Formats: sequence, structure tokens, C-alpha cells
Amino acid sequence: MENYFTTFIDIVGTFTFAISGIRLASGKHLDWFGAYIIGLVTAVGGGTIRDILLDLPPFWMLDGKCFAITGVALLATLLFKDKVFRWANTLMLFDTIGLGLFTIIGISKSMDAQLPFWVCIIMGTITGSVGGVLRDVLLNEVPLLLRKDIYAIACIAGGGVYFLCIHLNVSKSLTELLAALVVICVRLIAIKFQIHLPVLKSIKDV
Amino acid sequence: MENYFTTFIDIVGTFTFAISGIRLASGKHLDWFGAYIIGLVTAVGGGTIRDILLDLPPFWMLDGKCFAITGVALLATLLFKDKVFRWANTLMLFDTIGLGLFTIIGISKSMDAQLPFWVCIIMGTITGSVGGVLRDVLLNEVPLLLRKDIYAIACIAGGGVYFLCIHLNVSKSLTELLAALVVICVRLIAIKFQIHLPVLKSIKDV
Amino acid sequence: MENYFTTFIDIVGTFTFAISGIRLASGKHLDWFGAYIIGLVTAVGGGTIRDILLDLPPFWMLDGKCFAITGVALLATLLFKDKVFRWANTLMLFDTIGLGLFTIIGISKSMDAQLPFWVCIIMGTITGSVGGVLRDVLLNEVPLLLRKDIYAIACIAGGGVYFLCIHLNVSKSLTELLAALVVICVRLIAIKFQIHLPVLKSIKDV
Repeated sequence: MENYFTTFIDIVGTFTFAISGIRLASGKHLDWFGAYIIGLVTAVGGGTIRDILLDLPPFWMLDGKCFAITGVALLATLLFKDKVFRWANTLMLFDTIGLGLFTIIGISKSMDAQLPFWVCIIMGTITGSVGGVLRDVLLNEVPLLLRKDIYAIACIAGGGVYFLCIHLNVSKSLTELLAALVVICVRLIAIKFQIHLPVLKSIKDV
Repeated sequence: MENYFTTFIDIVGTFTFAISGIRLASGKHLDWFGAYIIGLVTAVGGGTIRDILLDLPPFWMLDGKCFAITGVALLATLLFKDKVFRWANTLMLFDTIGLGLFTIIGISKSMDAQLPFWVCIIMGTITGSVGGVLRDVLLNEVPLLLRKDIYAIACIAGGGVYFLCIHLNVSKSLTELLAALVVICVRLIAIKFQIHLPVLKSIKDV
Repeated sequence: MENYFTTFIDIVGTFTFAISGIRLASGKHLDWFGAYIIGLVTAVGGGTIRDILLDLPPFWMLDGKCFAITGVALLATLLFKDKVFRWANTLMLFDTIGLGLFTIIGISKSMDAQLPFWVCIIMGTITGSVGGVLRDVLLNEVPLLLRKDIYAIACIAGGGVYFLCIHLNVSKSLTELLAALVVICVRLIAIKFQIHLPVLKSIKDV
């Protein structure tokens, strides 16, 4: 799993997730340290929960670069905030790329732990989406994941493609690339065409 | 522990907890996926935290039926919602049965891990009640558990009876049944007669 | 690590953290049990998350005195609440002492697990501050830690001094005392002179 492609995935995903966390933290009257923590939790939360569930040491104990990357993300936000925050579309793109990449890392790590494929897909989904859930809980909001985004479902679709490719003996790098692209495309298409799942009506609406 | 009684416990408890989660999720503008996740977290959250604390693999990694049961619960809610949600009393009963059953599973699993009896009772209480706490945190509410329900205290009472029965050499199945009944009865009596613990007054009330 | 000094640290820290949790719980319409749980989570939450991350059994499974100490804290609050709550400054002092002591316990336990020093400092910070974060999440507030307090930064400073002392071959007890004092002094100075980190401005303020 340790190759340049995976390392690149890791850095880009961490940076984009941290930026997305810091962006949501602004306007909540957090101080710089609080914003850093929200960025960090968004970036490493999913992977940490995955590692706890897999009974592995949290990945950031073995490699602290996520702490530095989150610091760079905070610095970039402080220096170029008006630009960073107005690039809403670009950020959505980054966030989606991060989602695809993290999902694949999660699946890959779970396969190394010899888990059945459906558990691997769940672990990939957790890696990609739980950081954002923790971010929203800390910022005292109902998680975006639960409300209207095709988010976790994109992860699950990507996971399905991952195992299809494995089954067809596609090479590991190509499998990872294809599965990440599926996650990214499903989410981008859902955003572009405003595809949502139906809302669960409340009892008063019945 | 693996017998028909325990399997039945497991399925009924999962279904009732999932329904209770989905019910609270409605009216919060969640989509169907969000409602599914809330149902799932309510049903498996307590057991997952217990397994993490006991350093065991989360139970749903070994047996994915909770995912299917939550799906059935969501489907039942979508199809018969006006009925399901108006049966408030029936649901409270189901929820209480789930509480009793999950508490016993938690105690039983902790005993298999050779823990002292007071830790087993805490693990039973966590199994029964933490799913609801996670549900409330995700839905951005102060957990009901902390506010006014005789909930965890019913689990603790059932745990006490469990160890009394073990001490008296009652058979395992009968012990589990009796302890579950105590949890269920304590909670039902508390609801029926509106028995609450006193509220901690704020400084302004002093 | 098992000596009188550490045991004393543990008891005082647990009591002060429990009091700080119960104090914040009042005015939130929690019942006595809910207030007890908030006190307990504040006191043991950080150490529990640390132990899960270190893959150790949660410390309270091996030694249940935190449950009794939290009970005493609740009793003291119920009996002397008008006094306890009006001693706001004294409580801030206690809370700060608890912070210093818990941070040192967390660092010490991580060193026993042979982790690199920067991970030990993070674990110390988690031990000292995550209990308060869980308390705020359960009480449905944005964690104070993220908003304006020099809290985690005091832990990090104390952690730095800890490793400086180790490097200079200072005895373990003196190292722990010095590091705890640094945590306590940094926080007290920050409170006294109202030193805050800058707030991250929202996009609307740009």
C-alpha cells in the first residue's frame, strides 16, 4: 500500500478535508486553535474511528504529517481567506476529491486486515465521512451527512466498483484510481443535478 | 450464549431500537439515508462502544444482520408511518423491551470477558443506553437519558438481579429472562407512575 | 507510577473535574443521575479516550474509585450548592489543578507505552481536555476548548517542559510536579490577564 500514489492521496485528502473543516469553523467564533482542531478532526476523525474499530493504532501515531498539513491549511486560510472561502465551487471539488481518496485508503487498510468485503466498504465509508460528522457534532449542528447530501452513498458506490475490479483482477493502482473516480463522479453528478434522497416526513406532515 | 433465545433477543431489540431512532429522526429534515443511519446508530451504538471498551471486534463485523433489520425498520416506517408513529405507547413498550434485552446481552458478553461484576453491570447499562445517547447527540439534542427518564437506573437494577441469580445458581436462560424482566418492569413502572429523579437546580434557583 | 503522589493527583483531579461538570450541568434541567453522568464523563472521558487510542483497558475498569469520587462530588454539590457554585474563582483554580494533574498522568501512561514524545504530549492533552469536550457535546454546546480558553495550549506547554526535564535527567516526581505547575501557571496567567488567541473571522467579516 505504501507507494507514491497513496502518499499523494493522503496529503491532498488531508489538506482538503482540513480546509473544509476550518471553513465551517469560521463564523462560529472559534479561536485559531479551535479552528485548527476542527480542521484536524475533519481530516483525521474518520481514519481514527476506522483504526479503533479495526483495533489498529491510530494512523497519526505512526506518521504525524497530518498535524503539519492541517497547520498549513490553517495558515493558508488566515492568509488568503477571502480567496479561499469565495472559491466555494473549488472547495466542493477538493472536498469531493478528499472523499474519494479517503474512502479508498479505508477500504485498502481493511482489506489488509482480512475483513469481508462488505465490512471493507463500511470502513471505507466511515473513513470518508465520519470526520465530517464529528466536525458537525463539535460545531453543534445536525451532521450534513444525515440531511441531504449524496455523500456516504457515493462512498458505497465506489466500494462496490473497488470489489468488482478486484474480482476482475484489475491491478491495485488502477482499481484504487477507478474506485476513487466513481466516488468523485457520483457526488459531483448529485451536486450538479441537485439529486437528493427524499426527506423522511415528520409525523405532523402525515 | 449462542442459543435461540439470545438470537431472538437480538433481533427484537435491534428492530425496536432502530424504530425508536427513526421515529426521533423524522421531523428533523433528514433524508432516508440519514434516518437509516440514526436508526442504525441507535440500535448498534451501545454494543459498539461496549465492544471497543472490551477490546473486542465490533459485533456487527461478525454478523451483519443488524444492517438488514434496520433496513426493514426503515421500510416499515415509510410504508406504515402514520400507524407506526401513532402507536406511541406500543413503541415505548418495544423500546423498553429492547432496553432489557440489550442490557442482558451486554452483561453476558462482559462476563465472558471475565470482568468483575460491577464492570459487567456498567457494560450492560452502556449496551442498553449509549445508542440512544449517540442518537440524541447526532440529532443535536441534550440526551433524554440525562434529563428525566428512569432508564439507566433500570439497567443497573436488572444487572443487580442478574448477579443475585448467578450467585443463587439459577440457570443462565432463567437468569437472563428474570434480569430482562426487572429492567422492563422498573422502566414501565417509572413511566406509568411518572416517577422521576429530582432535577438538579441551577444556580439561579438557589 | 504507582506512588502516593500519583494517587493523590488522581483523586484531586477526578473530584475537581467532576465538580466542574456537575456545575455546568446545573441549569440544563438534568436530573441527579444526568448530573452524575456529566460529572463522570468530565472526569473520566479524557482518560478513557486516551486508553482506547493506546489500546489499553479503560483505567476505570481496573479501579472504580472515580465512580465513588464523582458520587461525593454530586453529594457535595447537592448539600452545599449555593456555596460550591459561588466559589467560582476557587472552582476555576481546582479545574486548572485537575488539568495539570491529568495531563501529567496522560503523558506518563503514554511513556510507559513507549510512544514517541510528541504522541505522549498529544495523549496528555487529550487526557486533560477531552473530558470537557465530551461534557460540552452532551450538554449541546460548542466546546469551550474551541472557543477562547488557553487550555490545550497549557497542556502542550507542560508536555514540552516534561520532556525537557526528562532530557536533563530530573527525577520522575520532580518532573511531574514541574510540568503540572507549568500547565497550571500558563492557564492561570492566561485567565488573569485575559490572554486569548485571535478568533477566526467568518466570511461575512472579511
